[in-house]
Amino acid sequence: MQVAFSADNAPADEAPYYLPSGNEVEVFTAAYRQHLPLMLKGPTGCGKTRFVEHMAARLGRSLITVACHEDITAADLVGRYLLQGGDTVWVDGPLTRAVRSGAICYLDEVVEARADTTVVIHPLADHRRELILERRAEQLTAHPYFMLVLSYNPGYQSVLKDLKQSTRQRMVGIELGYPPAEREHQILVREGGVSEAQATDLIKLAQAIRQLDASLLPEVCSTRTLVSTAHLIQAGLSPRVAATAAMLQPLCDDAVVQQGLREVVETYLPA
Amino acid sequence: MQVAFSADNAPADEAPYYLPSGNEVEVFTAAYRQHLPLMLKGPTGCGKTRFVEHMAARLGRSLITVACHEDITAADLVGRYLLQGGDTVWVDGPLTRAVRSGAICYLDEVVEARADTTVVIHPLADHRRELILERRAEQLTAHPYFMLVLSYNPGYQSVLKDLKQSTRQRMVGIELGYPPAEREHQILVREGGVSEAQATDLIKLAQAIRQLDASLLPEVCSTRTLVSTAHLIQAGLSPRVAATAAMLQPLCDDAVVQQGLREVVETYLPA
Amino acid sequence: MQVAFSADNAPADEAPYYLPSGNEVEVFTAAYRQHLPLMLKGPTGCGKTRFVEHMAARLGRSLITVACHEDITAADLVGRYLLQGGDTVWVDGPLTRAVRSGAICYLDEVVEARADTTVVIHPLADHRRELILERRAEQLTAHPYFMLVLSYNPGYQSVLKDLKQSTRQRMVGIELGYPPAEREHQILVREGGVSEAQATDLIKLAQAIRQLDASLLPEVCSTRTLVSTAHLIQAGLSPRVAATAAMLQPLCDDAVVQQGLREVVETYLPA
Amino acid sequence: MQVAFSADNAPADEAPYYLPSGNEVEVFTAAYRQHLPLMLKGPTGCGKTRFVEHMAARLGRSLITVACHEDITAADLVGRYLLQGGDTVWVDGPLTRAVRSGAICYLDEVVEARADTTVVIHPLADHRRELILERRAEQLTAHPYFMLVLSYNPGYQSVLKDLKQSTRQRMVGIELGYPPAEREHQILVREGGVSEAQATDLIKLAQAIRQLDASLLPEVCSTRTLVSTAHLIQAGLSPRVAATAAMLQPLCDDAVVQQGLREVVETYLPA
Amino acid sequence: MQVAFSADNAPADEAPYYLPSGNEVEVFTAAYRQHLPLMLKGPTGCGKTRFVEHMAARLGRSLITVACHEDITAADLVGRYLLQGGDTVWVDGPLTRAVRSGAICYLDEVVEARADTTVVIHPLADHRRELILERRAEQLTAHPYFMLVLSYNPGYQSVLKDLKQSTRQRMVGIELGYPPAEREHQILVREGGVSEAQATDLIKLAQAIRQLDASLLPEVCSTRTLVSTAHLIQAGLSPRVAATAAMLQPLCDDAVVQQGLREVVETYLPA
Amino acid sequence: MQVAFSADNAPADEAPYYLPSGNEVEVFTAAYRQHLPLMLKGPTGCGKTRFVEHMAARLGRSLITVACHEDITAADLVGRYLLQGGDTVWVDGPLTRAVRSGAICYLDEVVEARADTTVVIHPLADHRRELILERRAEQLTAHPYFMLVLSYNPGYQSVLKDLKQSTRQRMVGIELGYPPAEREHQILVREGGVSEAQATDLIKLAQAIRQLDASLLPEVCSTRTLVSTAHLIQAGLSPRVAATAAMLQPLCDDAVVQQGLREVVETYLPA
Repeated sequence: MQVAFSADNAPADEAPYYLPSGNEVEVFTAAYRQHLPLMLKGPTGCGKTRFVEHMAARLGRSLITVACHEDITAADLVGRYLLQGGDTVWVDGPLTRAVRSGAICYLDEVVEARADTTVVIHPLADHRRELILERRAEQLTAHPYFMLVLSYNPGYQSVLKDLKQSTRQRMVGIELGYPPAEREHQILVREGGVSEAQATDLIKLAQAIRQLDASLLPEVCSTRTLVSTAHLIQAGLSPRVAATAAMLQPLCDDAVVQQGLREVVETYLPA
Repeated sequence: MQVAFSADNAPADEAPYYLPSGNEVEVFTAAYRQHLPLMLKGPTGCGKTRFVEHMAARLGRSLITVACHEDITAADLVGRYLLQGGDTVWVDGPLTRAVRSGAICYLDEVVEARADTTVVIHPLADHRRELILERRAEQLTAHPYFMLVLSYNPGYQSVLKDLKQSTRQRMVGIELGYPPAEREHQILVREGGVSEAQATDLIKLAQAIRQLDASLLPEVCSTRTLVSTAHLIQAGLSPRVAATAAMLQPLCDDAVVQQGLREVVETYLPA
Repeated sequence: MQVAFSADNAPADEAPYYLPSGNEVEVFTAAYRQHLPLMLKGPTGCGKTRFVEHMAARLGRSLITVACHEDITAADLVGRYLLQGGDTVWVDGPLTRAVRSGAICYLDEVVEARADTTVVIHPLADHRRELILERRAEQLTAHPYFMLVLSYNPGYQSVLKDLKQSTRQRMVGIELGYPPAEREHQILVREGGVSEAQATDLIKLAQAIRQLDASLLPEVCSTRTLVSTAHLIQAGLSPRVAATAAMLQPLCDDAVVQQGLREVVETYLPA
Repeated sequence: MQVAFSADNAPADEAPYYLPSGNEVEVFTAAYRQHLPLMLKGPTGCGKTRFVEHMAARLGRSLITVACHEDITAADLVGRYLLQGGDTVWVDGPLTRAVRSGAICYLDEVVEARADTTVVIHPLADHRRELILERRAEQLTAHPYFMLVLSYNPGYQSVLKDLKQSTRQRMVGIELGYPPAEREHQILVREGGVSEAQATDLIKLAQAIRQLDASLLPEVCSTRTLVSTAHLIQAGLSPRVAATAAMLQPLCDDAVVQQGLREVVETYLPA
Repeated sequence: MQVAFSADNAPADEAPYYLPSGNEVEVFTAAYRQHLPLMLKGPTGCGKTRFVEHMAARLGRSLITVACHEDITAADLVGRYLLQGGDTVWVDGPLTRAVRSGAICYLDEVVEARADTTVVIHPLADHRRELILERRAEQLTAHPYFMLVLSYNPGYQSVLKDLKQSTRQRMVGIELGYPPAEREHQILVREGGVSEAQATDLIKLAQAIRQLDASLLPEVCSTRTLVSTAHLIQAGLSPRVAATAAMLQPLCDDAVVQQGLREVVETYLPA
Repeated sequence: MQVAFSADNAPADEAPYYLPSGNEVEVFTAAYRQHLPLMLKGPTGCGKTRFVEHMAARLGRSLITVACHEDITAADLVGRYLLQGGDTVWVDGPLTRAVRSGAICYLDEVVEARADTTVVIHPLADHRRELILERRAEQLTAHPYFMLVLSYNPGYQSVLKDLKQSTRQRMVGIELGYPPAEREHQILVREGGVSEAQATDLIKLAQAIRQLDASLLPEVCSTRTLVSTAHLIQAGLSPRVAATAAMLQPLCDDAVVQQGLREVVETYLPA
């Protein structure tokens, strides 16, 4: 099946700012055209959400985002009956709204959701493209423009919280990482509003931290914390104070590790 | 008891496309005629759902599918009371609708369901063929055309999630696997829309991956991911990019294993 | 106390077909006359349900069966308040209906039920014969013809799921097993509709499987799966295909064990 | 405080039959007069419930019994709001009814109840004798004739299910055991309706079983199962068949132990 | 802040009988005047509840007691919406009533309560003295006479059930123990109504038991059980029978330990 | 984006008393101006709540505080439907009120909250600044003055209760500790109302305790318990009695450790 994409030639530069680092735009577009669902893998703060916002704008589709958590159930996605004036009235959930209207539905951090959530999307994610509203005994066929996008962080190793193979094998996968230095530099100047020299210093600091042993830190500092540091500098804090608050404090609580990190900061940033 | 099957001679080629690999069509038909419930075993993406759709069309019965998950309870299958205008009104669940109307009720991935779900089907699955609506103090005898079909993936080894022997011994069993190479080739050309040569390459790749050590990969790539890869090629991606996105990314998140798989892809597919 | 049993001389051959293998009919009848509750022990598919149906018909009592599962609570048995037109209305559960009307209440697989269920029957199961409807602050004395029958499978070894001694010691116990060969033969011919020779082959096969080591198979094939195999043969499948589908597939999922079982089938049954 | 006991001289022989084996009647009466709550300890089927029924009749108080289980909550004892005609209406629970009316409230197998249940009785069980209806913000002072009686089986060893010391130390305790041989003999003849000789045989059998090693049997056969055996004999079963059904089958499911017990039965009882 | 205490000179001897054993009356009064919350530590039955009743009377404040248990939630303390005539109506919980009216709110055995309960009292227990009714989006400032008192038994060692340091450090603490012999003697004579000689015997017995090895008994006999024993003696039981019922039976269920304790009783008390 | 801060020049000395110990005021202000959320780390009673109250007053924003606990869910923060007159009416939660009105929302002890709570704040805590009201299918953009502040105690080591990196890396962090001696002295005199000499003694005592081995005490005495001690002294208790009640009793329940601490008290404080 081949649908016309009215937004196909929409100027990409009106979409939210996103610098691609590989073929992720092409794979996303191909999956969208072939009605295949997509899963995005990548570490904290590498730009998964931003990428989806960018693609939704580029493809001219509206975006419905659901931040998943361990209490999200199928009913939260699909809808439920509410009491109104003594009657029970059905209210569509975000997934159902996307299925009906042809939006992109983005389930952020989907491995956090309860098992029933991931299974309810199976009939939507294969050739059937059907959403079953069990409570209503109703079966919806997805709008031709509807697309399902999941994301998760493969760094959170957990046997308990993992997508099932029967879910994964319904998906097309894209893996994202932190952008390379030159692109991170561009982002800090454009989004963070710091000078070229300050951006260079901050990226050197980030790279030093990212090379530390994985046993010291559960995760390294993301592009997001670099941008936050730039914002604090813009608000008048010194680079050292800003980096301590926005890059170091979030990384860990261990006093010894913090002290080591502070010395790294003093090496790369002016007081 | 011997019932007339009006759909018996329905032309099989109007049913959804399915290539049988053994005597599964005969066993399914015999179980249907003898009012015996059926359980389908097989790995992810081998075509269990497609087979049931095919048989339902072939036998002229409508199909009611329930994607099971760990929060599915007996009430989700059987029905419940809802509040309407201050009164509680009974609403049949999907199993009850199938029992009343003589449909095929397909409980997909039934081992995920809660224990009460599997037990509620016992009186339906033996000589009684009765559905007990406990909350209504009502007892339904199944329509003569009603059939119960369960499926599960025996590869998901788990003591906690296993059908009880008292459930299993009420069922007739069929085991399905991935189709042999020549049939998978046929499927890729007909459903995936790739050329004969591309289909041959993809199947060679799949077979190479399927022979990898089981300790490396929790599960191998299914026929479904081969079809997805074909669709991405059709949408303009190169075979390598398409296979990476649709076959490799779903298989695992481990960086080392992914790198090894990428080398296998480069061996079999053009850039 | 001595009550008159109007159904005492009801012709046993109008009751559902059941061939006794010991003194179970006499013990059941004595327990019924003395107002003692009964517990039936036995493996999957040995005929516990059929025996209770037979006795209910023989004693002229109606039978109310509850398939127990781990979410069955006391309220499911006793009854609950439902909302109707803004009021809460009490609706009797199956146990309460049996207590009021003098039926036999059969709690199938009672060890699956939640602890509150088994305890709620204590006052019913001793000299008091009282059902306490806590939510209604009401106390029912059982109808003189009321009888409580429980069943469970002692082969499911579990510390967590076991009847408490205080429940067990209120009961009279009967242990059932698979019927001896000659009786199983009779059943296959009469109920399964196969020829004498086919019945003989099937029983030889079953006995070979039943002698396999217990570490290979969690449970052996029941009389029920023999009857199902007979039904599939009746529907036109070859004995080997029928036995594979109805006897072997339910027994286990292990590929090696399955292969061994298939060789056993080929030894005893024609292709 | 000293209250008049109108039922003090009620003829004890109109109360349900109970043969005391120690000073339990005196201790119960003293606790009742001093407004002290009571806890009864003893094995399954030794007569705890019967003793409480006897004392209630003897003291001229009505008896409200609650069979405790692991889902019993404070609200089940105290009461709750129910919906009636759109309003929430308070309905007293059994404990509250006993507190208001001056009945004896007997919480049978209280260690099974949830922790909130045992704690809710604390203010009732000390000098305050107050029942706090938290949901109603109401505080009841107990009727002068109100008495609280708990029972449990100390043989069920469990760290999780144990009365807290702060509950125990509010109680007066009585320990009951199986009655001595001569009293059990009296009970079998009077309640079980068997001959003197049959009673003697049954008690010899029971004593042989009670001396078996504790590692073989979780619990021994109670007076209750002796009475049930007598009833089955009365209904026409042979002593061996009756004892197998009512004494042996409840004791355990292990085939080897059962065989051993059967030999013991054959030693003491005629075929 | 300095508030006038109208009840300051209330005659202490009209308050419930309490014999102080240290400076607990002074510390309680100082905490009350300084608006500091209080926590009482002490073993079962040492008189914590009695002490709070005494202080409430002495300070002229009414007392609202909540017996905590593991299902007590913040809503039980603070209040909740109930349905009345179709509307939801807010009903204050006991803590809210105390906060509004200036009562002493006593949370007995607070470590049993759920975590949300202890945290909800934080803003009440520091300089803010505010109760936040989240469900009503309302914030109450406590009445100047309001005081919060918690109690727990430090002998119940448990990692799971412990007050958090952030709760503890908001409190002033008082530790209570069993009263010394001469004071316990006074209590037995005055409250228990026994003779001077009987009181002496009972206290000697209690002290002998209290010196037993802690591995034998989870807890020792409290002042409360001594008073209960005295009451049973008053009702006509012999000292030995009374002490066995009210002191020994509550202490433990172990047969060997019980026998040892009985010998101790025979040493100190007349038959 | 640069917003005007009307309260920018508000006299800091009208805000609740707070003595800064580092650059926390500057970092908080910079985060506020850049719309970055903030997390405060620090031990029990070091002044986190006071600091937030101070900053809210200084920045001229109202403060909405939520004491988190393990039963706090997203619905408690965001809002829920309540029944009113038969209709369900939406009631905003504290977070939603802050988002709409531009208040500072302070989630105290946020690691105690359930996972869904921390995830619901993600879209609020990054460039989107959006609160998604899933149940209403509504999306709020935060008021320009809205700020999110979290706090937690890094000393409570727990794998289960830890902020996720994806939450942490959205935050700017500030670490607070106990104030240095001279500032604690100032606080005791000004807030606690004791003399200079008494303040000096109390701080010496606190420092001695704070240097004890961490294996003895789970946490050391906070500034808050010093202030409470001062208040008890003000109410007439001797310094030793006051410090025992307000500093020692909260620290631990172990008798041996308590005895050691009492000796420390006697060293530093007059009787």
